[in-house]
Amino acid sequence: MIIHLKENISDDKAIELAAKASAIYYKKDGFYVLITGSAQKEINPELEPYADEYFAMSSDIQLASKDYRPELREITLGKAKIGGKTNNTLMITGPCSIESMEQITQSAELLKKHNLTTLRAGCYKPRTSPYSFQGLGLEGLKMLSKIRDEYGYNIITEVRDSTHIDEVIEYSDIIQVGAKAMYDQGILRKCGKSGKLVLIKRGFGTTLQEFVQSAEFVLSGGNENVMLCERGIRTFETKTRFTLDLCGVAWLKENTNLPVILDPSHALGYRYGIADLTRACVAMGVDGLLIESHPDPSVAKSDAAQQLNFDQFTTMFESLQPVANAVGRNII
Amino acid sequence: MIIHLKENISDDKAIELAAKASAIYYKKDGFYVLITGSAQKEINPELEPYADEYFAMSSDIQLASKDYRPELREITLGKAKIGGKTNNTLMITGPCSIESMEQITQSAELLKKHNLTTLRAGCYKPRTSPYSFQGLGLEGLKMLSKIRDEYGYNIITEVRDSTHIDEVIEYSDIIQVGAKAMYDQGILRKCGKSGKLVLIKRGFGTTLQEFVQSAEFVLSGGNENVMLCERGIRTFETKTRFTLDLCGVAWLKENTNLPVILDPSHALGYRYGIADLTRACVAMGVDGLLIESHPDPSVAKSDAAQQLNFDQFTTMFESLQPVANAVGRNII
Amino acid sequence: MIIHLKENISDDKAIELAAKASAIYYKKDGFYVLITGSAQKEINPELEPYADEYFAMSSDIQLASKDYRPELREITLGKAKIGGKTNNTLMITGPCSIESMEQITQSAELLKKHNLTTLRAGCYKPRTSPYSFQGLGLEGLKMLSKIRDEYGYNIITEVRDSTHIDEVIEYSDIIQVGAKAMYDQGILRKCGKSGKLVLIKRGFGTTLQEFVQSAEFVLSGGNENVMLCERGIRTFETKTRFTLDLCGVAWLKENTNLPVILDPSHALGYRYGIADLTRACVAMGVDGLLIESHPDPSVAKSDAAQQLNFDQFTTMFESLQPVANAVGRNII
Amino acid sequence: MIIHLKENISDDKAIELAAKASAIYYKKDGFYVLITGSAQKEINPELEPYADEYFAMSSDIQLASKDYRPELREITLGKAKIGGKTNNTLMITGPCSIESMEQITQSAELLKKHNLTTLRAGCYKPRTSPYSFQGLGLEGLKMLSKIRDEYGYNIITEVRDSTHIDEVIEYSDIIQVGAKAMYDQGILRKCGKSGKLVLIKRGFGTTLQEFVQSAEFVLSGGNENVMLCERGIRTFETKTRFTLDLCGVAWLKENTNLPVILDPSHALGYRYGIADLTRACVAMGVDGLLIESHPDPSVAKSDAAQQLNFDQFTTMFESLQPVANAVGRNII
Repeated sequence: MIIHLKENISDDKAIELAAKASAIYYKKDGFYVLITGSAQKEINPELEPYADEYFAMSSDIQLASKDYRPELREITLGKAKIGGKTNNTLMITGPCSIESMEQITQSAELLKKHNLTTLRAGCYKPRTSPYSFQGLGLEGLKMLSKIRDEYGYNIITEVRDSTHIDEVIEYSDIIQVGAKAMYDQGILRKCGKSGKLVLIKRGFGTTLQEFVQSAEFVLSGGNENVMLCERGIRTFETKTRFTLDLCGVAWLKENTNLPVILDPSHALGYRYGIADLTRACVAMGVDGLLIESHPDPSVAKSDAAQQLNFDQFTTMFESLQPVANAVGRNII
Repeated sequence: MIIHLKENISDDKAIELAAKASAIYYKKDGFYVLITGSAQKEINPELEPYADEYFAMSSDIQLASKDYRPELREITLGKAKIGGKTNNTLMITGPCSIESMEQITQSAELLKKHNLTTLRAGCYKPRTSPYSFQGLGLEGLKMLSKIRDEYGYNIITEVRDSTHIDEVIEYSDIIQVGAKAMYDQGILRKCGKSGKLVLIKRGFGTTLQEFVQSAEFVLSGGNENVMLCERGIRTFETKTRFTLDLCGVAWLKENTNLPVILDPSHALGYRYGIADLTRACVAMGVDGLLIESHPDPSVAKSDAAQQLNFDQFTTMFESLQPVANAVGRNII
Repeated sequence: MIIHLKENISDDKAIELAAKASAIYYKKDGFYVLITGSAQKEINPELEPYADEYFAMSSDIQLASKDYRPELREITLGKAKIGGKTNNTLMITGPCSIESMEQITQSAELLKKHNLTTLRAGCYKPRTSPYSFQGLGLEGLKMLSKIRDEYGYNIITEVRDSTHIDEVIEYSDIIQVGAKAMYDQGILRKCGKSGKLVLIKRGFGTTLQEFVQSAEFVLSGGNENVMLCERGIRTFETKTRFTLDLCGVAWLKENTNLPVILDPSHALGYRYGIADLTRACVAMGVDGLLIESHPDPSVAKSDAAQQLNFDQFTTMFESLQPVANAVGRNII
Repeated sequence: MIIHLKENISDDKAIELAAKASAIYYKKDGFYVLITGSAQKEINPELEPYADEYFAMSSDIQLASKDYRPELREITLGKAKIGGKTNNTLMITGPCSIESMEQITQSAELLKKHNLTTLRAGCYKPRTSPYSFQGLGLEGLKMLSKIRDEYGYNIITEVRDSTHIDEVIEYSDIIQVGAKAMYDQGILRKCGKSGKLVLIKRGFGTTLQEFVQSAEFVLSGGNENVMLCERGIRTFETKTRFTLDLCGVAWLKENTNLPVILDPSHALGYRYGIADLTRACVAMGVDGLLIESHPDPSVAKSDAAQQLNFDQFTTMFESLQPVANAVGRNII
């Protein structure tokens, strides 16, 4: 149950009421929001006099549910906006991993060429083998920070585990909670207390219910700037790396108020169909795209098979706006 | 291995050579095509003098492979054509099940309104419960046949098992081999010997390899008019009925020479996102769409939740051509 | 809903009542059993006077449900019995495919050595490629028939599709409805009208609900001799061929009244762990086992990797009875 | 590649050699072990003079592979031993979550009654909803510590994320890396540097390859005390909570040198079949079992449906030793 306390209630009183209800709470727009398990269908009589309004919910998808807030949330990313009534689809691109200042500068120039605003690059790579390239870590974060200083981009980078969440919060504009980290409460709770934008990737074995509940950890911490990212689920089919779940995306659009970003690169795992899939994603009417590109994928230290080179990216990118127009959207 | 015998070889000799090679064979364009298991990488010395050309293949996806025939096959459906260099995307619609002459006439009128040519409706329903509506059977086939006589449409209907394959061949223009029947060799072999068009739906637990190998049963029988239909696979996600596998579609487009039709209705299982998904399918550049529509879905005897009513269909349909234009395709 | 009509009702009246209720029906032990969809929770007032008892059911698992018949059904296979209160676990073995009279005679001798009664061998192989060995067909059935005449075994063989269901019914004692054929109503309905024993394998993409509903097709035809066989489902894990679903077996034992047979050979797909898995199956307390064995697996025409040779079979077999004893069961 | 340096090499030299080879390294039994990616098949010429022996490996399952160490590793848990040549199967039990001193004392008494040595209980619960009971945290750890002081048990408890890994290392004897945390390198690397026993649960969407590679993170840190725990994978089947993958267990036993523990409670998710499944696990010949039990499951704050009460546990437990005897093992 979500309970909006009245505006004039003191902090002490609000906290006392939250404790009585065993509720999570945060303050927003001058009033307190209390959230208890969705099994609770009736408000506590003790709280009722202090409540402005309250919402009995059908599952623990609460703050993210259209039953609570029917309109799509708007998110501001520097100069860009998505969600709300914007009809914008944000193109995020960059390499899988930052490998050098030279490489990331080339990527920055690619964005400049296309008037894009948001650069992705991984510093802490959640590799499944300890014997693979693990990322540049803090050094990479500092390089990305320099790029932001020079180009003014939004920097999005992945947090692998809670040991470096503070660094990622410090150096990035958008915290990417990766598919393998999205149950990590150490990360999610810090994100909830941070003012930074958060993009949560769906785990490849994660149900839609669990996926959105991960967002609830952040939302219920008081941070409303959450985006969901579908990047492919693991199925019996192995000809492709994962299976991009557009039915799931339809469900998210129907049932949640969070912007949805799609990552076809990780889903397919191969370059050949990325352009087709990306056009499909645009036609779905989603709020953003995450496409891996690299100055020279053949030497990439991770995800070599799926990254587009800059010519491939450009050709694909130029094909998107007509599709976007056809469905009333803008690629930004 | 695929072996093209020389043109001047007699039927008897060809059959003798096929037997020696333990090969499946068919005659086409004046010459014999022999096919053996893909494990065979070298041609039998006995056959070599009679062979015009031959193709060692990497898997038992042989006749359907781009390694054998790199160009997309063209299929003629009455006045319509798909595949080849047509850039056409065929819209097939109609109810899940034919329920009455009145209902199917209404559906026929819907097609007429939109200048469509291909009507779907099930007569033999592969229900998983014996206690559900099982379809009108032969009576339904006869009704569909009347509609064809009156409107000139292509009729596509599903064969459930081999007991009625002859009837379906007799009464329909396109034999739909359903998701639960696509391993059925009784059906596939009859389709291979029939001149009718064949649309094979991917089983919900079927790998892409097996899916295309089902088409090999038909192709190696000498029937080249095969279309593949992706309709969603079964995954751990249950908020949606199935998971439409567009990554798999990208793989099919890259690796096979068969036209690909998409069925978002069965994949999602709910009306709400069909329009979005269909636009995504169009943007993928596929060869056809299979959309369930019903004059009044609320009284439909099967798949009530996912069928569009005619207004919904029309609104969705009208949104498709702009998306198709954006990717250089025509909706027909 | 399952309705038992009173004993003294005439055939004509029973059929009339069934038609009124849109019910499937069969006669058994002197009375008629009518079955309608489980959505029906109240008996039709017209039928009530003729009903002896009736059972509102929670799903279309009806005749197979413990809510209808709580006791495990007993099945008689020639001299052997399983289910009921027997605590017997039937060992079925033999090659994947019958390849020659010599091979199957060797297999028959293996059974003789271990006092076994039930021989498996496939004649119609449901291969996924048209270019693989497809089985000996009718010729194989006749060989198996000779073995039965000589040794007195129960013969179990697979029906691939409905084109040869009559032959399989004629020549075999137990009809195996394979994993790829278990939705085939042409097969299931014939099985329902046949007096033969039926073993239904779970499709690798088939839910437990659908699996048991396949059995309902046979049971509602009036044939009560149905066994369920779990043989592995398809998951994301590909190191093994399939994933044996013992949790599903626990569910079947808890919820249905049908004997359960396990096939670890097809699940694992490799010889190395068959012995361990088979012992695990025995400890689960199941009603039967289906183990592939071959005089010389290295030359087997199908499933070469998973068949045990006779020494391996014997070593494994001798380890089973102690495990069976530990859980109060007999291997027969 | 795994390289054993010669014994007389100085620390400085070893570290220099490791750096040259971009290798992970640890010291053990007086010599250094260096590990590089398995793509490396030839030893660097510079290292060869210093190498005692080296192992080219076929995948990044290296230290855990039978190709490197064919014998099953032995693990000492206080007074108990598993693995090696012990043929012991360790029964670990206790509640899902520690809820109070009274509850955990009752569980401790259950262990005492059965002469068991290893108590499980969760303090940091990785719930998928922020609105559910999250565990007692550090307070729970301290209670468990008291129980160890009093009863001398091994305490196993789960680490949810890296924010509290130091506390779990401090207070527990066996660190349980849960199914949702097993990609967490913050946890895995700390475990590698800790001397504590580590039990890694397979993620429900995790392949066997990735699962064992998680163990490689710990092993390559120099901690050899790693156990693998299969607890069910997520499949399309939803009648049961997860699907226990005994085929996967067969693969692990065949290919790795790590002890394998099975957790049927989380796999099935319901009490009814736990006894059957546990007997099956024992018959598989595994090294341990993890069974949830609770003094009163009806009031449990998590996993209420799957925990056994003490009578159920006792009945089940007493049935295990006969099965164990039948396969030559001891329940300890």
